[in-house]
Amino acid sequence: MRGKFITFEGCEGSGKSTQIKLLGEYLKAQGVDYIMSREPGGSEISEDIRRIILNGKYTAMCDECEALLYAASRVQHIKEVIEPALAAGKLVVCDRYVDSSFAYQGYARGLGEEFIRSINAFALRNYTPDLTIFLDISPKDAFSRKHGADSSDRMESQGPEFHQKVYEGYKKLEKYPRFCSVDCSGSKEQTAENIKNLLKTKNIIR
Amino acid sequence: MRGKFITFEGCEGSGKSTQIKLLGEYLKAQGVDYIMSREPGGSEISEDIRRIILNGKYTAMCDECEALLYAASRVQHIKEVIEPALAAGKLVVCDRYVDSSFAYQGYARGLGEEFIRSINAFALRNYTPDLTIFLDISPKDAFSRKHGADSSDRMESQGPEFHQKVYEGYKKLEKYPRFCSVDCSGSKEQTAENIKNLLKTKNIIR
Repeated sequence: MRGKFITFEGCEGSGKSTQIKLLGEYLKAQGVDYIMSREPGGSEISEDIRRIILNGKYTAMCDECEALLYAASRVQHIKEVIEPALAAGKLVVCDRYVDSSFAYQGYARGLGEEFIRSINAFALRNYTPDLTIFLDISPKDAFSRKHGADSSDRMESQGPEFHQKVYEGYKKLEKYPRFCSVDCSGSKEQTAENIKNLLKTKNIIR
Repeated sequence: MRGKFITFEGCEGSGKSTQIKLLGEYLKAQGVDYIMSREPGGSEISEDIRRIILNGKYTAMCDECEALLYAASRVQHIKEVIEPALAAGKLVVCDRYVDSSFAYQGYARGLGEEFIRSINAFALRNYTPDLTIFLDISPKDAFSRKHGADSSDRMESQGPEFHQKVYEGYKKLEKYPRFCSVDCSGSKEQTAENIKNLLKTKNIIR
């Protein structure tokens, strides 16, 4: 039986890494057969593409190029990592996925949902997540919690207006039943508890 | 006035590099204001993407990833190189362009014309070549002339069946009036003469 596929989404500094780590510890303790991966990246070729996407020197990169590189990295990651793991019945937990492209490139960059949909046709046709956990915190609050952005990362070093638009882009995705916003205004332990409860409600774990 | 945009297409070993070089010498002698570029590549970011695409180690690269990387490299090359040169009224000569994606990824890899069209929407909407010169020689004849393929190049090192399909893919593009096949069964000087005559007939040069 094909495994379940869940993805984490959120603005920079929303606490994704922390929550994914906490979830991993919980899954391990429960004896769940799972893998963790991340986007862009997750395989040798995809990580090589990631290096180009996030390179802080590449300020001349145009929006379409950025969106296409994410899509290229994504499809390779699916074929090499996600597809085999799901086929083996594992639970796949991925840090970012196609919703990042909808929010960042489709909405904040203004390329539109249709273009993102067409270049990510393979992912959307075959590997829609069973559940997407959106860590719902405004970029302003997230940034203050993170104590500033990493200026060597081309995406993180975008200005606050950009990150506000990303957040708005994410909120539009709440129209999809699989896309679930999680309150993360409390402590990290509280947020982790919210996520665990969501996974149980959605029958991802027992 | 926007400059003219011409592209060269052909199978591996069809003599594109030689013909582009000869054309460059001719254009220079005629005092034409032109630039030469190539795909994938032509700008710093695009050349970095090229390095991934052609990397002989990356045998695991899936077809969709390959097609998306070409499209990413292309749109960046347009924005940084082709667009400014055409806006400055220059003649732009490019070694490979979107027709390579139709022939290699759309036809030979089997991804289909529609997918190639959608991921290359920006190029096709705004920068369709005024003339495409297809060096019409079968891969079998081309390979024998080139004395074998470069095994460190991921595209060149594909088998002969693949290159035969690429050729068939190219031949289907003859339905477009801008796509002109040039006989190159003769000497390189004869082929160069055929190309010059074509450029004159199509009013690209006087």
